[in-house]
Amino acid sequence: MRRVLLIGIGAGDPEHLTVQAIKALNAVDVFFIVDKGDDKQDLVRLRKEICDRYVENASYRMVEVRDPERDRAASAYRAAVEDWRRRRADIYETLIQDELGEEGRGAFLVWGDPSLYDSTLAIVDEILARGNVAFELEVVPGISSIQVLAAKHRVTLTRVGRPVQITTGRLLSAGFPAEADDVVVMLDADCSFRQLADDEGEFDIYWGAYVGTEHELLVAGELSAVTDEIERIRSEARAMNGWIMDSYLLRRRSP
Amino acid sequence: MRRVLLIGIGAGDPEHLTVQAIKALNAVDVFFIVDKGDDKQDLVRLRKEICDRYVENASYRMVEVRDPERDRAASAYRAAVEDWRRRRADIYETLIQDELGEEGRGAFLVWGDPSLYDSTLAIVDEILARGNVAFELEVVPGISSIQVLAAKHRVTLTRVGRPVQITTGRLLSAGFPAEADDVVVMLDADCSFRQLADDEGEFDIYWGAYVGTEHELLVAGELSAVTDEIERIRSEARAMNGWIMDSYLLRRRSP
Repeated sequence: MRRVLLIGIGAGDPEHLTVQAIKALNAVDVFFIVDKGDDKQDLVRLRKEICDRYVENASYRMVEVRDPERDRAASAYRAAVEDWRRRRADIYETLIQDELGEEGRGAFLVWGDPSLYDSTLAIVDEILARGNVAFELEVVPGISSIQVLAAKHRVTLTRVGRPVQITTGRLLSAGFPAEADDVVVMLDADCSFRQLADDEGEFDIYWGAYVGTEHELLVAGELSAVTDEIERIRSEARAMNGWIMDSYLLRRRSP
Repeated sequence: MRRVLLIGIGAGDPEHLTVQAIKALNAVDVFFIVDKGDDKQDLVRLRKEICDRYVENASYRMVEVRDPERDRAASAYRAAVEDWRRRRADIYETLIQDELGEEGRGAFLVWGDPSLYDSTLAIVDEILARGNVAFELEVVPGISSIQVLAAKHRVTLTRVGRPVQITTGRLLSAGFPAEADDVVVMLDADCSFRQLADDEGEFDIYWGAYVGTEHELLVAGELSAVTDEIERIRSEARAMNGWIMDSYLLRRRSP
């Protein structure tokens, strides 16, 4: 039986890899490396470095595929994402079928943790549901960028007996959740925290980009006091590196 | 300067440790091992196994302390937790002062990730705020049980463009959050999911206990169909092992 592994590889620091992930890497015949475009070459390079560093048996192969473009201008976000997912499933299905032998083991290396805003598992589930190629699926958890964010700021994401909501920039734009005083925001291309009216100095923000890497940037403080600084730093870093991955915790001050 | 490390050691499988955590373990002079009572000896033993397995230089010391009892009958949950935290801060402060030399490095090994419902960081912050003993603080992230839960069930915690709320059993008892269709519940001693009226088969549950360990238990299915099974399995396992650590994802079905 073919076997497909989704291996969480952490947030950018190769030392985020777990012993379990390293063992899993060493059992892989073929790594499927997904290239998301020229501006993210850093991420492809980092994946290769991780294999070089941790895989002892050099008999593995790497197969690079170009990710299909997502229609980022589409007004129907979910429909656009679903269309994109379908096209990725077509590509990944072909990879699993053509590149893995009957007993072959293939792996996708997933940034952060496969359970948080990563589409690889949904794509692989879609391939399994189609039933054209059978395989066993294994998921190996990894350190997520939001855990690194919390560690670097030396804060917890949860306060005693209170919830934390993990959400997207798009959802935050619609307003701060009513039911949580601690909100972690991922996938925010637009600095949605700007739109929170914070005249009363209600919120603190703990922001980070490229956490755990040599490019790491951290800013923390009262939201209204650091909003401009984060926007400026973010836009400079994005221009310099060609891409950015950032996340933040918004914390409503205790009454 | 004294140095204190909070090292996330994963959810029970020693292979959850990251390369970064292993490096950190190897730089420690004194491990502070907190004993939470007779029924959790398993957890103390596992911490020692992790040190035995990964620390190459055996010159470290281990100092065991007994955690003060928390008043679990108190009606004011937060006040009881705060009192408990203060008493723990007294103990930990003495440890840092008496057991570490001026340049000493001490570590607390934290189950899961230090950012999710763990009080160690808040206790250490309280000690820093008191100012009786100065030290540098470093936090090393770890794999959380909810990431292992998701990996073992091969599900994601987030769906496309939607939030996930991480909360406690106590909060869930007050009702399913209105703003999230995906809710992860930790620290639930009372199977609070029982209290969700689910006459219309609205929810699925992905439940796990001791995830990543030899005692691992997993149940998934429609909430109303598996509620009794989870309750029974949970109560049997708790009786057999003397303690239980479980968590679950509740997912409202898509319309």
